[in-house]
Amino acid sequence: MNLVAFQNCYPDDLSHCYGCGKNNIDGHQLKSYWHTHKGNISELAAEQTIAHFVPDQCHIAIPGFVYGGLLASLIDCHGTGSAAAMAYRQESRTMGTGHAMRFVTAALDISYLAPTPMGIELELIGTFTEVKENKIVIEITVSANNGVCAKGTVVAVRMPDSMVQSH
Amino acid sequence: MNLVAFQNCYPDDLSHCYGCGKNNIDGHQLKSYWHTHKGNISELAAEQTIAHFVPDQCHIAIPGFVYGGLLASLIDCHGTGSAAAMAYRQESRTMGTGHAMRFVTAALDISYLAPTPMGIELELIGTFTEVKENKIVIEITVSANNGVCAKGTVVAVRMPDSMVQSH
Repeated sequence: MNLVAFQNCYPDDLSHCYGCGKNNIDGHQLKSYWHTHKGNISELAAEQTIAHFVPDQCHIAIPGFVYGGLLASLIDCHGTGSAAAMAYRQESRTMGTGHAMRFVTAALDISYLAPTPMGIELELIGTFTEVKENKIVIEITVSANNGVCAKGTVVAVRMPDSMVQSH
Repeated sequence: MNLVAFQNCYPDDLSHCYGCGKNNIDGHQLKSYWHTHKGNISELAAEQTIAHFVPDQCHIAIPGFVYGGLLASLIDCHGTGSAAAMAYRQESRTMGTGHAMRFVTAALDISYLAPTPMGIELELIGTFTEVKENKIVIEITVSANNGVCAKGTVVAVRMPDSMVQSH
């Protein structure tokens, strides 16, 4: 069980992302984790990831509802974070140890299913649908008050080692 | 030829979107226009839309490159703005006159083709692929220095009149 957010395990120089970088003081600083259930971790639950986020007052589409670009950003960063965590897990390594692995988004598909209300903590749940060494696909739901407002698919591809090391 | 940005024609109470609302002082305030070519507007050019945006210094993925969530947000808002403009055009009305028409995003699909460099004005070009009364589909490219960095498809659906009028 990993209580450290995936994004907090990124190398410092790859932690500037506006959506999730711990070193971007202006950004959203999304934090993603393995999804556990009351201390009882089933194999299925361990395959899922979770993140929570409360939109700022300015993040509106029309008054009362969250704008879609924020949801896209959260899905994107939860996806690449989940992909990185899964890659470490595939190698049975603790995230953040040894040579760094980082994923970037190749494709992002989002369906907006219902208006997303403001003033409520959003919950993102990620489920892996494909796991290869250099490509990981994650389906992500965004819920408010247990109602799914948006769902997305992130195709995450591994950042070349040369790019990871150069930063 | 319309020199007023599409988003500046939205009703005041529907102009709060973080991505493009003129009344959201914290937001991106994206401005979209019909795409014209040196005063010589061909039928094809008139079917396209254009927007420009310079990312803020904080909008990074990794140092030197724009984060994907911003591109998603810009594509989204350029898409719904373009859809609204096209809907007025289909009714041969000047945008912003008569009863208001506004579109929201049902689906957003984005392919990230190349890292998007910071410090450069991005150009979005929208091309309509489907135009119906209640559903308009737009394909959008995002370019930097004339190189396409991302392309997306926005499926925009018309906001119910009741929702438009209530705001």
